[in-house]
Amino acid sequence: MTAETGIAKGRVETLIDGIYAIAMTLLVLTIDVPTVPQGVSPDAALPALILGLDDQVLACAIAFLVLTGFWRAHEEIFQHLSRINRTFLNLNLIVLLCTVFVPFTTSLVADYSSSRLAVDLFALNLGVIGLLFAGQWIYISRSPELLHAPLQDGVLRRGLLRSLSTTIAAVAAMLIAVTMPISANWGYLLIPLILAVSNRLPYR
Amino acid sequence: MTAETGIAKGRVETLIDGIYAIAMTLLVLTIDVPTVPQGVSPDAALPALILGLDDQVLACAIAFLVLTGFWRAHEEIFQHLSRINRTFLNLNLIVLLCTVFVPFTTSLVADYSSSRLAVDLFALNLGVIGLLFAGQWIYISRSPELLHAPLQDGVLRRGLLRSLSTTIAAVAAMLIAVTMPISANWGYLLIPLILAVSNRLPYR
Amino acid sequence: MTAETGIAKGRVETLIDGIYAIAMTLLVLTIDVPTVPQGVSPDAALPALILGLDDQVLACAIAFLVLTGFWRAHEEIFQHLSRINRTFLNLNLIVLLCTVFVPFTTSLVADYSSSRLAVDLFALNLGVIGLLFAGQWIYISRSPELLHAPLQDGVLRRGLLRSLSTTIAAVAAMLIAVTMPISANWGYLLIPLILAVSNRLPYR
Amino acid sequence: MTAETGIAKGRVETLIDGIYAIAMTLLVLTIDVPTVPQGVSPDAALPALILGLDDQVLACAIAFLVLTGFWRAHEEIFQHLSRINRTFLNLNLIVLLCTVFVPFTTSLVADYSSSRLAVDLFALNLGVIGLLFAGQWIYISRSPELLHAPLQDGVLRRGLLRSLSTTIAAVAAMLIAVTMPISANWGYLLIPLILAVSNRLPYR
Repeated sequence: MTAETGIAKGRVETLIDGIYAIAMTLLVLTIDVPTVPQGVSPDAALPALILGLDDQVLACAIAFLVLTGFWRAHEEIFQHLSRINRTFLNLNLIVLLCTVFVPFTTSLVADYSSSRLAVDLFALNLGVIGLLFAGQWIYISRSPELLHAPLQDGVLRRGLLRSLSTTIAAVAAMLIAVTMPISANWGYLLIPLILAVSNRLPYR
Repeated sequence: MTAETGIAKGRVETLIDGIYAIAMTLLVLTIDVPTVPQGVSPDAALPALILGLDDQVLACAIAFLVLTGFWRAHEEIFQHLSRINRTFLNLNLIVLLCTVFVPFTTSLVADYSSSRLAVDLFALNLGVIGLLFAGQWIYISRSPELLHAPLQDGVLRRGLLRSLSTTIAAVAAMLIAVTMPISANWGYLLIPLILAVSNRLPYR
Repeated sequence: MTAETGIAKGRVETLIDGIYAIAMTLLVLTIDVPTVPQGVSPDAALPALILGLDDQVLACAIAFLVLTGFWRAHEEIFQHLSRINRTFLNLNLIVLLCTVFVPFTTSLVADYSSSRLAVDLFALNLGVIGLLFAGQWIYISRSPELLHAPLQDGVLRRGLLRSLSTTIAAVAAMLIAVTMPISANWGYLLIPLILAVSNRLPYR
Repeated sequence: MTAETGIAKGRVETLIDGIYAIAMTLLVLTIDVPTVPQGVSPDAALPALILGLDDQVLACAIAFLVLTGFWRAHEEIFQHLSRINRTFLNLNLIVLLCTVFVPFTTSLVADYSSSRLAVDLFALNLGVIGLLFAGQWIYISRSPELLHAPLQDGVLRRGLLRSLSTTIAAVAAMLIAVTMPISANWGYLLIPLILAVSNRLPYR
């Protein structure tokens, strides 16, 4: 006979909150403090150098906002759970593994915003996390033994739509990148749009 | 009919505490460990190199103390809340987005303390966060459904004054920077002054 | 007469969760954002540069997954404890000291994946942590005064096997490294294998 | 009439635990991953380069262990408190400000272990934190309104001795540094010695 130790839900939450807090704060290390060449007055050189950081600041802000969305997804899913099993924990750890790569892919797209490859890797990273969250919603909808109450159809539909909003936006970014890599990140504007729609969906 | 999942207040608090803890600790990465040129004795070179870090240490200490003030503001506001809604969460996430930029603008002003632009960006970053906290106080004062008890006028007034103390000090720093950028950060001495006044205000 | 202040279990958990969250997120700083030489088009140079990161990404993913395993070990052990004493806290702090070195040894093996020394130091770091966890299981099995209920033999055996899975895999990696350092990290595939076995062991 | 909002003890604890977790994990960034010169085989060059990291590893380990001691001091003090007031919070924030500097002074002493100035700054940083903890013990012993129960003399004496152990060791390190800066950090061996004595002191 085999059994399984229950997993302390509270500690998984602390780990997740910690990793998101750190990943979100590390993003800013993506932005290089500009180096004014020796012999040049900082006041003369800095304005142009700082304006040149626009791609980095934009990438950082997008990644931050997408990460807040993912954190919200964790938080929403955990609200429905009364307990956690090993499969669900492992799903979460894979999400977290993908999440700690976000500062790296953000850094890549921040430094090489005109490269289609950099745009695609950033989009792939975010898009896969979106898919994994959709997978979590489906998994818990089929695991009533983990839930406070059976998941209503509306809640599942809304959770899936919100999770996939990032994946859809990532695909859009990759499509834009085919012709205009530098403008690809505007594709992420689809996320707030889809979220706004999801907030109007009936709950049941 | 649409509804809204409640948001776990405790997890938002953990995320905020985590981001502040990290941002406050990352500040010190602002300070470069000096590099003694090869062939020079460290004991001969270090004293001057370390004294040359004064701007960086000062910027780091100011940013740390201002961040503790912001953290206190979060903590005070959350004490009045019995629950959180989506709008309030979004307000907080915007504050956090601005907060993760603080190590960057601190680094900028630490490296270019004589540049008016660097001083202004640092002040702008802090000043905007102050405004956003004032916005949070106003928002919760008008959202009694989120509160344990209706907000007393004195509490609101004190919260606003404390939030805006940073904005006022940031404006002062920008004004000083017009003529003496290198001395601008003394403007932040206004914050403890205003806080001391706020502690004497009647509570109702 | 001497006495001992009880130690707040919840705070030790927060410290552990925090350190693991940070160490897991810092791993990604191991991966250098590639620098495209000036005058070369990013789109031309990036693909090869990014493919060249395979060792770093692999090392980062392995270290992440091993750290999640260690975090799980902490979490499992703490579930059995009703209180903590000084000896147990000290054991944990030594584990944490070894844990904060993981991003460093990961970085080493990521940069020098063909060096036997780098492989050995990474394996030593992980293997020692595995041993220390085995030590924790033995310590708590002999300290019934710390436990909710006496540890069942099956739980102890399973805990030991899971802790030592990393040590066994680390020894395997070191053995592979004698002839093929670059392939040594495949030794860590033993961990999921041993964990899968441990999940089939009888619980009592 | 003025009043004071109570301060959420739990959130101060989360902030402290977070900052300690981060500072303890950042220490390892103190250790530079060695760079093998181009054209040299890593296996030939790495052993000497890694052995050359001994000062950095030692400084990192000492700082880690001292920080665990400080974290323990926070944890012990908070166990006696039923609530927190503004003065006590401010004392803690000053301790935290000094704490976030520890990775910097550690980095300094790690890179320049033979420099008396570096040794002194590291010792000063740690020694001042020890003094501030002694100050916290005295403050709470005189603020019975914050405590679950009046502080026993033995508890206060033990708390003071443990807090000052770091200060005493730091002074010892500075004295050793007068003649042998490179051996100064052995002075910190006084800390476990003093702690061992403190554990034998009568509790009342």
